[in-house]
Amino acid sequence: MEQETISFDRLWQFAYQVFIKIGCPEDQARTSADVLLSADLRGIDSHGLARLSGYVRLWEAGRVNSKPSIRIVHESPSTAVIDGDQGLGLVVAPYAMEVAIEKAKQCGTGWVAVKNSNHFGIAGYHAMKCLQHDMIGMAMTNASPLVAPTFSVERLLGTNPICVVIPANEQPPFVADFATTTAANGKLEILQRKNQDAPLGWIQKKNGTPSTNAHELKEGGALIPLGSDREHGSHKGFCLGAWVDIFSAVLSGANYGPWVPPFVSFLTPPADPVGEGIGHFFGAMRVDAFRPAQEFKQHMDNWIMRFRSAKTIEGQPKVIIPGDPERECEAERRRIGIPLEASVRKDLETLGQKLGVAF
Amino acid sequence: MEQETISFDRLWQFAYQVFIKIGCPEDQARTSADVLLSADLRGIDSHGLARLSGYVRLWEAGRVNSKPSIRIVHESPSTAVIDGDQGLGLVVAPYAMEVAIEKAKQCGTGWVAVKNSNHFGIAGYHAMKCLQHDMIGMAMTNASPLVAPTFSVERLLGTNPICVVIPANEQPPFVADFATTTAANGKLEILQRKNQDAPLGWIQKKNGTPSTNAHELKEGGALIPLGSDREHGSHKGFCLGAWVDIFSAVLSGANYGPWVPPFVSFLTPPADPVGEGIGHFFGAMRVDAFRPAQEFKQHMDNWIMRFRSAKTIEGQPKVIIPGDPERECEAERRRIGIPLEASVRKDLETLGQKLGVAF
Repeated sequence: MEQETISFDRLWQFAYQVFIKIGCPEDQARTSADVLLSADLRGIDSHGLARLSGYVRLWEAGRVNSKPSIRIVHESPSTAVIDGDQGLGLVVAPYAMEVAIEKAKQCGTGWVAVKNSNHFGIAGYHAMKCLQHDMIGMAMTNASPLVAPTFSVERLLGTNPICVVIPANEQPPFVADFATTTAANGKLEILQRKNQDAPLGWIQKKNGTPSTNAHELKEGGALIPLGSDREHGSHKGFCLGAWVDIFSAVLSGANYGPWVPPFVSFLTPPADPVGEGIGHFFGAMRVDAFRPAQEFKQHMDNWIMRFRSAKTIEGQPKVIIPGDPERECEAERRRIGIPLEASVRKDLETLGQKLGVAF
Repeated sequence: MEQETISFDRLWQFAYQVFIKIGCPEDQARTSADVLLSADLRGIDSHGLARLSGYVRLWEAGRVNSKPSIRIVHESPSTAVIDGDQGLGLVVAPYAMEVAIEKAKQCGTGWVAVKNSNHFGIAGYHAMKCLQHDMIGMAMTNASPLVAPTFSVERLLGTNPICVVIPANEQPPFVADFATTTAANGKLEILQRKNQDAPLGWIQKKNGTPSTNAHELKEGGALIPLGSDREHGSHKGFCLGAWVDIFSAVLSGANYGPWVPPFVSFLTPPADPVGEGIGHFFGAMRVDAFRPAQEFKQHMDNWIMRFRSAKTIEGQPKVIIPGDPERECEAERRRIGIPLEASVRKDLETLGQKLGVAF
């Protein structure tokens, strides 16, 4: 069964018009559409247009401010804390990344923690902004609690992604962007729609025993930190998720752990918040604050080529350099268009009708 | 069978005298003994006295300089690159961490990449130096290639640990310090000595198929990145190990990937180095460059208490906060002494006889 594809331009226009309809200023609607569509282009379908109506519902519930006054509330030469004023993470995050880049221009590196924000799309979009400045970029965010730390039955962490982006010279950049769980929630959602089982090691039941039921989260189960179980290092995955949570939210003054407000509008946020909104953390490091940029980038070319050409396990064509699959997907989808699942397409049509935007 | 324990003071004195014998200045011998013994105290037995004769053999082979002139070769307000002059990582790393802390005092954060160094003991020792300054500390290092990236049969990365240390108020600090592989090499060495099998997911054979043979590395096999296999996220573990390698060595000008020189003196370093020695990377972030330190630390107390008191899987007493086991081990070993395996004890006795240091 071939999926129908729709051109990037048409989908971008639709998203832009939706953001305008909910009251975003033009420049912010543009940025929001850019960030959202970058997920669809790069093949992270769970973080793109599939989420558009979710953002709108949060706005309807009064939990997203479409005209935020984003501002720096604390800073040092290499750091800042930003209050997102309950804006879309899709616009708060680019603002924060820009501040980090400016700090890095001035003193070598810039580090920005963000509070009072909402979901920011894919981390990779933000961190990749550093590349044009010959900077290394980092982005992380906390998220609604779906993950049980090792030995816990309670869900205390989000899938809390980390992204690290490193420029090269002639080779494409190194772009690592991954959830700190064994599998991202988006992968689970694919299995749910297909009514397929999940591999052991991705999820646990409400009582903490292993499960293969992709619908287990609805029954009180949880995603598992990278590593799957204690013997295979799930305590390390827990360390990673905790690190993201603390940098994103305890440094900034956002909600952390089980207090992170849910993305979905039908669940109410905890009544006893420990901070404001959700939190993000961004970093920018000027390569030439360490060594000449050209020299660094040539060694990155050498690093990438050596790893990509490694001798492989029989049947595997090559070692995949982080960022390769997403870049290849983007090239293809810019050319042939973006495939939309029937359910996502229907959801967007309904949204368009409600807001008076032609799909 | 009870293991004999020896007092910290006696073992520290022995290590100190050995470092003096190989020509270290007094202050550097003291620092080296501190760093080495901190591993034994914290229960990371593979990184402590068990490695002392290995450092000495590298010195005998002319690959460690016991009187290094450690210096900053490049810097910006928030960054520096340090040339370790082929010194012991045990002294180069504390120097670099001190530079990072000074930078953070001046401009909020400090980030230091190191080249031309050797093994630096446990990452946790270095990062924990930040705590007394109310700073978050980070430390990472690359290491001899023992790890095959996902789909590779070649060993291209070290076990490349990451450490993140975060201060709290009344609670002990958060100390995450872990190899970016499913299991650290030290855990494999324990199984080798006991002639026991390893769990599936830790190691692969020379041809890349899974193995439970703890001796597989001698046959050309490899350790596996955190995640164990592609379906359980080993590509994320590869991302983590690659990140450590690039920050530690491509930023600094050290050797990276398969070019990292081996720790053992009987293996010769690659004939075509791409940099100097091995590399490390350190970070220090002043908490009050983000928000008042007291406020931050109180929220960390809240974070730690909430996670530690989470409802657990039946049979598990509590969720373990990163750093808890090592801190408890240190308290016990300071009291009752450090247990030494018979083989390590014999190795130290032989070393003492050779150098004329009473064990």
